[in-house]
Amino acid sequence: MAAVSSFLFERGANIVASDQYSTDPFGGSFLLRMEFHLEDDAALEGIRAGFGTGVGERFGMDWRIRRADERQRVAILVSREEHCLLDLLWRWRRAELHADITQVISNHRDAEADVAAFGVPFRHVPVAPDAKPRAEEEMLGLLAGSVDLVVLARYMQILSGDFLARVGAPLINIHHSFLPAFAGAQPYQRARERGVKIIGATAHYVTEELDAGPIIEQDVVRVSHRDGVDALARLGGDIERVVLGRAVRWHLEDRVLIEGGRTVVF
Amino acid sequence: MAAVSSFLFERGANIVASDQYSTDPFGGSFLLRMEFHLEDDAALEGIRAGFGTGVGERFGMDWRIRRADERQRVAILVSREEHCLLDLLWRWRRAELHADITQVISNHRDAEADVAAFGVPFRHVPVAPDAKPRAEEEMLGLLAGSVDLVVLARYMQILSGDFLARVGAPLINIHHSFLPAFAGAQPYQRARERGVKIIGATAHYVTEELDAGPIIEQDVVRVSHRDGVDALARLGGDIERVVLGRAVRWHLEDRVLIEGGRTVVF
Amino acid sequence: MAAVSSFLFERGANIVASDQYSTDPFGGSFLLRMEFHLEDDAALEGIRAGFGTGVGERFGMDWRIRRADERQRVAILVSREEHCLLDLLWRWRRAELHADITQVISNHRDAEADVAAFGVPFRHVPVAPDAKPRAEEEMLGLLAGSVDLVVLARYMQILSGDFLARVGAPLINIHHSFLPAFAGAQPYQRARERGVKIIGATAHYVTEELDAGPIIEQDVVRVSHRDGVDALARLGGDIERVVLGRAVRWHLEDRVLIEGGRTVVF
Amino acid sequence: MAAVSSFLFERGANIVASDQYSTDPFGGSFLLRMEFHLEDDAALEGIRAGFGTGVGERFGMDWRIRRADERQRVAILVSREEHCLLDLLWRWRRAELHADITQVISNHRDAEADVAAFGVPFRHVPVAPDAKPRAEEEMLGLLAGSVDLVVLARYMQILSGDFLARVGAPLINIHHSFLPAFAGAQPYQRARERGVKIIGATAHYVTEELDAGPIIEQDVVRVSHRDGVDALARLGGDIERVVLGRAVRWHLEDRVLIEGGRTVVF
Repeated sequence: MAAVSSFLFERGANIVASDQYSTDPFGGSFLLRMEFHLEDDAALEGIRAGFGTGVGERFGMDWRIRRADERQRVAILVSREEHCLLDLLWRWRRAELHADITQVISNHRDAEADVAAFGVPFRHVPVAPDAKPRAEEEMLGLLAGSVDLVVLARYMQILSGDFLARVGAPLINIHHSFLPAFAGAQPYQRARERGVKIIGATAHYVTEELDAGPIIEQDVVRVSHRDGVDALARLGGDIERVVLGRAVRWHLEDRVLIEGGRTVVF
Repeated sequence: MAAVSSFLFERGANIVASDQYSTDPFGGSFLLRMEFHLEDDAALEGIRAGFGTGVGERFGMDWRIRRADERQRVAILVSREEHCLLDLLWRWRRAELHADITQVISNHRDAEADVAAFGVPFRHVPVAPDAKPRAEEEMLGLLAGSVDLVVLARYMQILSGDFLARVGAPLINIHHSFLPAFAGAQPYQRARERGVKIIGATAHYVTEELDAGPIIEQDVVRVSHRDGVDALARLGGDIERVVLGRAVRWHLEDRVLIEGGRTVVF
Repeated sequence: MAAVSSFLFERGANIVASDQYSTDPFGGSFLLRMEFHLEDDAALEGIRAGFGTGVGERFGMDWRIRRADERQRVAILVSREEHCLLDLLWRWRRAELHADITQVISNHRDAEADVAAFGVPFRHVPVAPDAKPRAEEEMLGLLAGSVDLVVLARYMQILSGDFLARVGAPLINIHHSFLPAFAGAQPYQRARERGVKIIGATAHYVTEELDAGPIIEQDVVRVSHRDGVDALARLGGDIERVVLGRAVRWHLEDRVLIEGGRTVVF
Repeated sequence: MAAVSSFLFERGANIVASDQYSTDPFGGSFLLRMEFHLEDDAALEGIRAGFGTGVGERFGMDWRIRRADERQRVAILVSREEHCLLDLLWRWRRAELHADITQVISNHRDAEADVAAFGVPFRHVPVAPDAKPRAEEEMLGLLAGSVDLVVLARYMQILSGDFLARVGAPLINIHHSFLPAFAGAQPYQRARERGVKIIGATAHYVTEELDAGPIIEQDVVRVSHRDGVDALARLGGDIERVVLGRAVRWHLEDRVLIEGGRTVVF
């Protein structure tokens, strides 16, 4: 920390935010996120060029420097339920999400007109039950190399490990339960059957194991015996979109670090 | 509902609270809880005597009438963690729990002095690893026939089906997770490993299947990557005692009905 | 209660939901809401015609019977902030709000295209600083006699007592604070200055006294010293729209009764 | 930040936690809290001795170094409601509060036996209506110079500015409302009258203006029209003790900084 902050200070950077976390103060991983401001934009190249030899290599760091005004390219995948998609588009238009939403891909046509109203290209990639590999291939053609983040905004198809490996960008999924409870299909139905008094939603990075990736954010809402599955879906929907919106925003601000299957959110 | 309220009205009862729930308005189970006030205490016997033939049998009801000022006998089982126990004793002294706490049974002696300070008998029933049946037998001797509710306030021994069948009273357990997530042992440890952003506590009736009985109440608290297992236990502890306190209170007020493996809390 | 339920039962009504509340069990006001189902639609007229003489007059009741499938006419007033408006329109399209949204009136043109996309008439009624009475007169011309509920979805003009008296429908407002804290102007600014750790939103019926009408619903979100006024507005915005959505939905389902300056929400 | 971390690093300190906040990145106040570990305990004196000339004076800092294992002396003032007091004592015994609770002062005798059970001296300082100055003088005699923190755990007497000036330690108060709503007397009564749907509790530093000091922590609980003033007091009580416990703990860990009438909680 002394090394990083001194290196930046000496090159004219004003550190405006700094967060750190050690998995173990004595010998664990040390995670650090700093935001800094440069009066002289040109100084950035010097910092980028010198950081590795000056600091990074000395401490064996994994490091990355990104301009805060750089816009990441985001693609959204969605199936029939449009509430998370619309909420992201609306937050994006409202400038809550600093990114370029470059395309929306869906296995249904339901959201086409809504997406068009936001001026975002809509691609329909249907998934026939026996032709999922072909659909994934088509999506890879649309995505690979042209996207920095893929958001699964209630996309109800399970993506293969091959797809995840080749898409070349992290994926964030919203699952409509309080994970690890009710991983997999029909969480509201199962929440109702179990008789829980609170339901939740979970945004997580996608890994090959279903609903088991690092959790970025969760939130919950109280329900009662009066709430049937439809009511759970309605109440949960409000949570899903808020949770997904937070997770995507934090990711775009580089606030989310993955460490040992968990996230650190700075 | 018309039949019940008319029957009560005609016998001078003033209905002061009424809640109902139908699992399905057309043919499901109908659950009804009424509180009524009688000017003339003696009228209660007439209501009790007449309700079955006058109303209950006609509609095939399961029904029960209880005086609100009747105190149930409660026994608390506890192991080493004393926070839920102390909270129940304190709520009881403060008259938040309308009951007689008749005994505290523990497989450790840690809580003995605290319990004594509340004027409640403390019984030490150690559980040797190879002699659980004997311990259960001893507890049955202390409990059976002399208790209306058993509360497991962080009692860390699994009770056998035989014990549950013979104790003759419902049991409420507090589990230190948001069920069905992290049922079983070491939920805080597992919550930490999974990296959840919210932890919870669940009060439920005990059935033979571990942590699978009808849920009475749940609550949650937000945590972060900074919170290790000890912090989760500390933060969760505050939720555990509130959740257990509510569940016991509601049970003692006859607000909790079980229907199809779930509870209806009026 | 016995009288009402017996009256309905005798006319073939199946009571599917019932809630009651007494301000004081012995002599207070008694509030009752029942939902019932009729096999024979024609029986409703008999119930309506007979209820007053059969039950209502006998107990001096204020009463009303409404068909659940009857759609109320809702007008929305909005200024520049569009998040609550869009959320209501979206919930309405999604059939979460059982109503006809008949018009949106705004003192700005910002929301015009968005409203048009939902197929709802948009009316621009600018409010010149010195000509508020004229603007109110114009709005009364658009509203009076043709609306059952007016929703102020971040409408930033104070409506006069004369307007409230003449519009002929209840008004629900969303205020962006946890009332009674920060009533009036710039609540997020003032919340920031006071250094509160939680902010909220309040949906309430509008009365002549600013932000003092009966509260229907409130919710909150945790904030920290890191959140400036912009962040409070962003975080609070998510709460505002959920709180307003709930309040409007409950009002449309006739779940909200006013009693002594407070609401009872069944 | 570079200067501080380098200074510490060079003297063998391992920084295990660090938090910073700028009121304005360009010219505002900069607040920094660091926890560090020293292999060699003796090095602390060097750090203490050198920090001012080496770093502090150069940047015009207000700074302080405290050993984490140093126990602050805490006095608790209480009136009749004992729930916050007992909770603090219980957390203290459970080692959640790293401090010495050196005395409990009350204007009533109600809590005497409870306090004695924790082995803490209890002092009864009654406050006659016309002799508050004498009572304050007596308390100053007990407190001044022998306490690092005074906690008002539902102490219902207003302390004079003179007392605050002379006691020589910060005071934390728990107020049973969601400030700034319902500052002053009888907040639950007034919450009930206003018909709020959520109640809260606020822990804050005490200043001469009643309930207007910097807020450390707040929390809330949902209530309904069914909850009378007694129920609000019961539900709110659970929040009060949690909020006060958190605030005291954070204060004792030196996590709370005051800046411009607000707190920064690291």
